[in-house]
Amino acid sequence: MRLSLNQITTRDWSLAEAVRGCVDAGIPAIGLWRDKVAETGVATAAKLVRDAGLAVSTLCRGGFLTAQGPEGRRAALAENLRALEEAAELGTDTLVMVVGGLPEGSRDLVGARARVAELLAELAPHAGDFGVRLAIEPLHPMFCADRAVVSTLGQALDLAEQFPVEQVGVVVDSYHVWWDPDLERQIARAGARIASYQVCDWTLPLPADALLGRGHVGDGHIDFTGMTALVAAAGYTGWIEVEIFNEQVWRTPGADTLRTVIERHRTHVETP
Amino acid sequence: MRLSLNQITTRDWSLAEAVRGCVDAGIPAIGLWRDKVAETGVATAAKLVRDAGLAVSTLCRGGFLTAQGPEGRRAALAENLRALEEAAELGTDTLVMVVGGLPEGSRDLVGARARVAELLAELAPHAGDFGVRLAIEPLHPMFCADRAVVSTLGQALDLAEQFPVEQVGVVVDSYHVWWDPDLERQIARAGARIASYQVCDWTLPLPADALLGRGHVGDGHIDFTGMTALVAAAGYTGWIEVEIFNEQVWRTPGADTLRTVIERHRTHVETP
Repeated sequence: MRLSLNQITTRDWSLAEAVRGCVDAGIPAIGLWRDKVAETGVATAAKLVRDAGLAVSTLCRGGFLTAQGPEGRRAALAENLRALEEAAELGTDTLVMVVGGLPEGSRDLVGARARVAELLAELAPHAGDFGVRLAIEPLHPMFCADRAVVSTLGQALDLAEQFPVEQVGVVVDSYHVWWDPDLERQIARAGARIASYQVCDWTLPLPADALLGRGHVGDGHIDFTGMTALVAAAGYTGWIEVEIFNEQVWRTPGADTLRTVIERHRTHVETP
Repeated sequence: MRLSLNQITTRDWSLAEAVRGCVDAGIPAIGLWRDKVAETGVATAAKLVRDAGLAVSTLCRGGFLTAQGPEGRRAALAENLRALEEAAELGTDTLVMVVGGLPEGSRDLVGARARVAELLAELAPHAGDFGVRLAIEPLHPMFCADRAVVSTLGQALDLAEQFPVEQVGVVVDSYHVWWDPDLERQIARAGARIASYQVCDWTLPLPADALLGRGHVGDGHIDFTGMTALVAAAGYTGWIEVEIFNEQVWRTPGADTLRTVIERHRTHVETP
């Protein structure tokens, strides 16, 4: 089974609880979040995961590269270097990058995107040194203003292709890209650039906080059979990470959530 | 002034009130909605607008072409033929088309898009006969599941270009397309296909009903100076329609709303 639990899916679990939950449920990998890792410290977190025999599919997340001015730029570089170091220590080869939205008061999308490209160019060689790949995650266009000025897989690839394939890749997250009329072509184009395949479903209505509208695989409008086939055809054989932001899922006991995750994974994504 | 008031912006006004409001405010054109027109009847509505000396920039809206099966298809065709006839009688050359989302229970985006293309092919010659252009409106990707499986200007143009330019065009609506990394290229490509330029702003947070999150020009994150320049460079010289779905705007007295609309239009869109 190529299933990985992204830690946000069981948000209220500590890292130790999430690791135990994965082991108990037979999930072989986990995607970690930096805030959860920080609660135990990186070294302890790395040991916890390693001792449990889990793979670390990704570390979430680096990015936020759109700040203006030398100070914002230095801070972003420093933060991402720390994230790369943590990723290496945690034993994952993938740092998920959410590139950041428009700075406060700015309407200059072109400028913000240019700054993303510039900082990626500074970070990419360091990523190579750490043996960790920067995985640019296009976010759904509804997050363009406040979270990510990279909105499509094509745009993420335009950026990634400026760097060696082992330094910069892309994330294919079903929730963010399912609507894209160019999806088939862009997934094929992505090929070995695919650093992570993340899944959760598009459900309606959107909740008051649009960030939290993601559903279990199978509860919404996304054709996972089709999308998974495209990702496979592109040559991706890595982890398939379930990443759900959803208040109702978060209120559910973690073990129950994991049962649903595994069942839906087998039904819709990876048939045994 | 090339400003047109899309009637939804003053939702609680009847057609007669909206016409009077435009005349009083010095707004030379109006974009009509079929439900409002139906309240007075098409002939009366046409006379009201004509007697007031207003141009009719668009009729909103036709579309919803994704139904499955012969019955749904026949119903959609009939409804759009009625809309074309109304548009002609109202004296506008533009019928805005919202193409429809996924049918209940379907996850087949490719199929839904194919049905849009098929029905457009049936409708286009009729549009030509009526002297009315079908204006395909790409909707923001967050409406892909429930309202429009056409999400980008490029995708709308791929469809429109299969037909004569006088039969099928596209709408450039700032709210729906502002995030698109390919926007500059696609607006230039659109050229004479641009049948309508609609404006309102992207404001955050999104409200509980994501449909109603649009703000007055200048209240959000969109660079209207830049977008308007692109539309002008593409050769568009038609009406610029202000279309705002927003509960707070709807609670504001119409005359006040029109004052804001005009002020923002002059500041951000069309400098006198």
